[in-house]
Amino acid sequence: MNVNGQRYRTIWVADDGRTVEIIDQTRFPHTFETISLESLEAAAHAIRVMQVRGAPLIGATAAYGIALAMRADASDEALMMACSTLLETRPTAVNLRWALDLMRKALLPLPPEAREAVAYKLANEVCDEDIAINMSIGLHGSEIIANIARTKKPGESVNVLTHCNAGWLATVDWGTATAPIYMAHDGGIPVHVWVDETRPRNQGAFLTAWELGQHGVPHTVIVDNAGGHLMQNGEVDLVIVGTDRTTAHGDVCNKIGTYLKALAARDCGIPFYVALPSPTIDFTLSDGLRQIPIEERGGEEVSRITGRTRSGAIETIDIVADKSPVANPAFDVTPARLVTGLITERGVLEPNQQAIASAFPERISSAA
Amino acid sequence: MNVNGQRYRTIWVADDGRTVEIIDQTRFPHTFETISLESLEAAAHAIRVMQVRGAPLIGATAAYGIALAMRADASDEALMMACSTLLETRPTAVNLRWALDLMRKALLPLPPEAREAVAYKLANEVCDEDIAINMSIGLHGSEIIANIARTKKPGESVNVLTHCNAGWLATVDWGTATAPIYMAHDGGIPVHVWVDETRPRNQGAFLTAWELGQHGVPHTVIVDNAGGHLMQNGEVDLVIVGTDRTTAHGDVCNKIGTYLKALAARDCGIPFYVALPSPTIDFTLSDGLRQIPIEERGGEEVSRITGRTRSGAIETIDIVADKSPVANPAFDVTPARLVTGLITERGVLEPNQQAIASAFPERISSAA
Repeated sequence: MNVNGQRYRTIWVADDGRTVEIIDQTRFPHTFETISLESLEAAAHAIRVMQVRGAPLIGATAAYGIALAMRADASDEALMMACSTLLETRPTAVNLRWALDLMRKALLPLPPEAREAVAYKLANEVCDEDIAINMSIGLHGSEIIANIARTKKPGESVNVLTHCNAGWLATVDWGTATAPIYMAHDGGIPVHVWVDETRPRNQGAFLTAWELGQHGVPHTVIVDNAGGHLMQNGEVDLVIVGTDRTTAHGDVCNKIGTYLKALAARDCGIPFYVALPSPTIDFTLSDGLRQIPIEERGGEEVSRITGRTRSGAIETIDIVADKSPVANPAFDVTPARLVTGLITERGVLEPNQQAIASAFPERISSAA
Repeated sequence: MNVNGQRYRTIWVADDGRTVEIIDQTRFPHTFETISLESLEAAAHAIRVMQVRGAPLIGATAAYGIALAMRADASDEALMMACSTLLETRPTAVNLRWALDLMRKALLPLPPEAREAVAYKLANEVCDEDIAINMSIGLHGSEIIANIARTKKPGESVNVLTHCNAGWLATVDWGTATAPIYMAHDGGIPVHVWVDETRPRNQGAFLTAWELGQHGVPHTVIVDNAGGHLMQNGEVDLVIVGTDRTTAHGDVCNKIGTYLKALAARDCGIPFYVALPSPTIDFTLSDGLRQIPIEERGGEEVSRITGRTRSGAIETIDIVADKSPVANPAFDVTPARLVTGLITERGVLEPNQQAIASAFPERISSAA
C-alpha cells in the first residue's frame, strides 16, 4: 500500500535482481526505514528480531532467505543448513515451516547451478500468491462494506472497528482484515476505522494506525476499553479482525481482547467478521477453547512500554507498580457462535463445519 | 490500609490538631510521599492537580480546606470565598459540592470564633462517615467472597477481577470495590485479585496494584484485553467494580471498559458485582445509556504515557502513530441486566428499581 504517497510491498527484490528489501518494522511508528538483506544471516536476523512480523511476511522472508543462501552456496549442505537456520528463528510460526518445506522440496532435486534462479522465482511466487489471496479477501469483504454504505446517507462513512494489526504490514500487501477496508476506500466508499490500540504490544496504535494514515484512510485510535461504548452508541457498523488460527468449526484464535469485542458486537447487534487466508484454518481442530493452547508471554510486555520522548529519543518506561506480578496471555478464542462470517479468499463463509468444509474440500481429505 | 507495614488513611489531621496530611497521589506508583496542607490554597491546589482524587476523598479534602480557611480568617466573606475557591477546583465533582454545602450551612449561622473548631469536627465526621459506609460495603461484599471460598479446596484462592481504582486511595479508607477484598483478606480468606491496568490512565496498574501490594493482598496485573480469556478459562470467580453514577434502575456508569467485562462475566456465568456508597445512586435517572452523558477527555491521555525509565527518571512518551487522531471516552454504561448485584452500605441489592427504592426509601421522597 502507500507510504509517503509511494506504493510499497513489505518485501521486494531490488533492481539488481538479488538484494531483498524490507521495511524495518522495529522502528515503527516513529521512523520509516528500509533494510537491504544481502545474506541468509541478514534474513534470519530480520525474522528473529521482528524487523518482519506477521505469518505471511515471515514465510516470504524465509523463502527469500533460501534464495540469498543459494546465491552464496548452492550445495545440498548449504540448503539444509539454511532451512534449519531459518526454522530456528521463530519455531512456532506455521508459515515459516510451510515456506521452508516448499523451498527445500523444490530445490533439492535440482542441480546446484539451477537453484539460485529457481529459489528467487519461487520466493516471488510465494509473495504473489499471498497478494492474490488478500485481494480476494478484500473483494469479498468490500462487498459487505459496500452493502452497509448503501444504507447510509450520502457522504456518511461506514465505521469499521478492528483489533491488532492484520494489516498489509503483516503480509506482503493488502493485509487480511484491512484488505476489505483498503479496497472499499480505494473504490470511493467513505470508510472510517476505529483502531484498538491493542495492549500490550500496541500493534493497533503503532502499525494499523500508521498504515491506514499513510494510505489516507480516515481512522481514530482508541484504547481497547472503548469499543463496547462506541458499539452501544451506534458508532460502529461492523467489526473486522484477523485470526492466527481458526478451527474446522469456525472458532477463532486471535490477539487477546478479540473475544471481548465479539461479545460487545453480539450484544449491540453489530456484525462481527473475521478475515482469513485459508491456511490459517486448522482442520484437525474442532473446539478452539479446549484445543488451542494460549501462549503466555513475558510480563515485561505489560509492565514496560517503548515510545518517543518530547526530545525525539526512543525510551522505555515502567508503567506498573513495582513488585506487582504481571500475567500476559497473548491470544484468546472467540467461539464461532459470536462470529457473523469468515471472509476467505473463496468468499464469506458461515462459521460452521459444513460451510467451511464445502469451501475447502481439498483440505478435508488431506486433514483426514 | 497498610503502607510499608503502617496503617494509613488517605487524609488525616497531624498531631498539632490543625495541619492536614495527605498522600501525594500524583507520584504513584513509583514514589510514596505525604504532603502537609497548611492553608485553603494548599487544599485547593491538592484537589486541582489531583494530589487527591476519587469522589469521597475530594469531598473530605474540601471539608478540611474550609477548616484551614477558618483558621486563617473565620469571617462570613472568608467562608464564602473558601467555598467558591474550592468548588472551582473540580466543578463536576458531586461530592465536592455536597461537602461544601454541608460545611457552609453548618458554619454560617455560628459566630466566627466558633467556626474553626466546628469545621475540623465536621471534616472529621465526613471522613468517619465515608469509612463507616465503606466498611459496611466491605462486610456485605466479603460475605459473597466467603461463600465462594467455601466451594473451594483448602488453600485455593477466590479470584476476583476488578477494573480501575475503586480502592482506598479514592476514599478515606477501605475503598468501595476493594473493601470486600480487604475484609476477606484480613479475615483470613485466601483472595487473589486480577487487576485490569485500565487504559488510558492506568489507575489499575498504578493505584490498585500499588495499594493491594502494600496491604499484602496477592494480585496480578493484566491488560484490559485479558479478562475475557481468564473468565473463559475458569480463572475468575467474581468481578467487583466501582461506579461513578448509578441509575434508580441499576444501570452503572463506570470507567470505560467496565461494560466489556460485564459482558464476558455474563457469557461465562460469572457473577458481576458493583460496590457503591448510596450517594452515587442518582434517583432522577432511569435509563443510563440514554441519560448519562459520557465525558470525552483529551486524546493525549491515550497517545502519551508517563512512567519511570531504567535510570529512575520519570518520563512521558508518545505511543500512537504520528498524526493519527485519537478519541477518549472516559466512561461507559453497564446496563442493569448484566449486573448480578449492587453491594451497598445497606446490603447487596438486586439491580432493579424496586430493590433499590426499598433499600433507600428516604432518597425516593427527596428525588420526587
